[in-house]
Amino acid sequence: MHKADLGGQHCPIAQTLEQVGEWWSLLIVRNLFCGMSRFDALQQHLGISSNILAARLKRLTTLQIVQREADPQDGRAWHYRLTEKGQALAPLLAAMVDWGEAWMPHPAGRRIRLIERQSRQVVRPVQIFSQAGVPLAATELDFEPGPAADASARALAEAARTRR
Amino acid sequence: MHKADLGGQHCPIAQTLEQVGEWWSLLIVRNLFCGMSRFDALQQHLGISSNILAARLKRLTTLQIVQREADPQDGRAWHYRLTEKGQALAPLLAAMVDWGEAWMPHPAGRRIRLIERQSRQVVRPVQIFSQAGVPLAATELDFEPGPAADASARALAEAARTRR
Repeated sequence: MHKADLGGQHCPIAQTLEQVGEWWSLLIVRNLFCGMSRFDALQQHLGISSNILAARLKRLTTLQIVQREADPQDGRAWHYRLTEKGQALAPLLAAMVDWGEAWMPHPAGRRIRLIERQSRQVVRPVQIFSQAGVPLAATELDFEPGPAADASARALAEAARTRR
Repeated sequence: MHKADLGGQHCPIAQTLEQVGEWWSLLIVRNLFCGMSRFDALQQHLGISSNILAARLKRLTTLQIVQREADPQDGRAWHYRLTEKGQALAPLLAAMVDWGEAWMPHPAGRRIRLIERQSRQVVRPVQIFSQAGVPLAATELDFEPGPAADASARALAEAARTRR
């Protein structure tokens, strides 16, 4: 599933997909996010071969999305945890929960809820806000090239500027 | 890249990955989001074979993420557009832009900016907010099973509840 050339694309979306745009990787991040930290628990929950899980965890560790710690009770066992970079994927996971529930709903209601731990209240749906704090619809957004834009990023922004 | 069994997973994140968790699909959505609507423009920008692009567009159309419209000037040509379901992926794309720029930054600065069309101002980074409107860190979040949770979703929530 790994295409080596995607990271060469000069776009933050492409580079994000390069690091976590593979199903198992994001599902592993989802499970680690829930505090499921042991290899065997991850393997059982994901229904994934130990080879694939080990390879994905190794790659996520190399990318500094995941770190492993020895179990204080059992020095031969490891716990896998999200790093700060891995935890920063929370808005991406939340956006996936929102989209999945909104557009592929289950007739019996929500399957899973993202909640604030302290209050036990469901969090707000992820939205895009203007600097003034106003929620923006997709049709109110554009892409604009930044100072590090290459020809590809400029072509995208140009498409946005000249859309019709 | 398509694994038929992911959609069977009873989780909104897994189901989202089933529909758009394939690199080309999300990059196509990114380009359509910018208003790049013609097959040849998409093919040239993505550097993708016409077979793969046609297959991905067909799948995205079947999933009602993309719709196609005849070109008013040329009845034989098509424009591909995001549907409402496709536009609802904007927060997911925005979260990817934020994460990519934050954790894989370019030394010259931002590559691309998501802006509010009218004010031309950069939008705020995507965050997760409590019901009270307070931004929440990843460590303040939990998953909780909803009314439609199956054993897998309950196991995830249980991991979150008993994390240490």
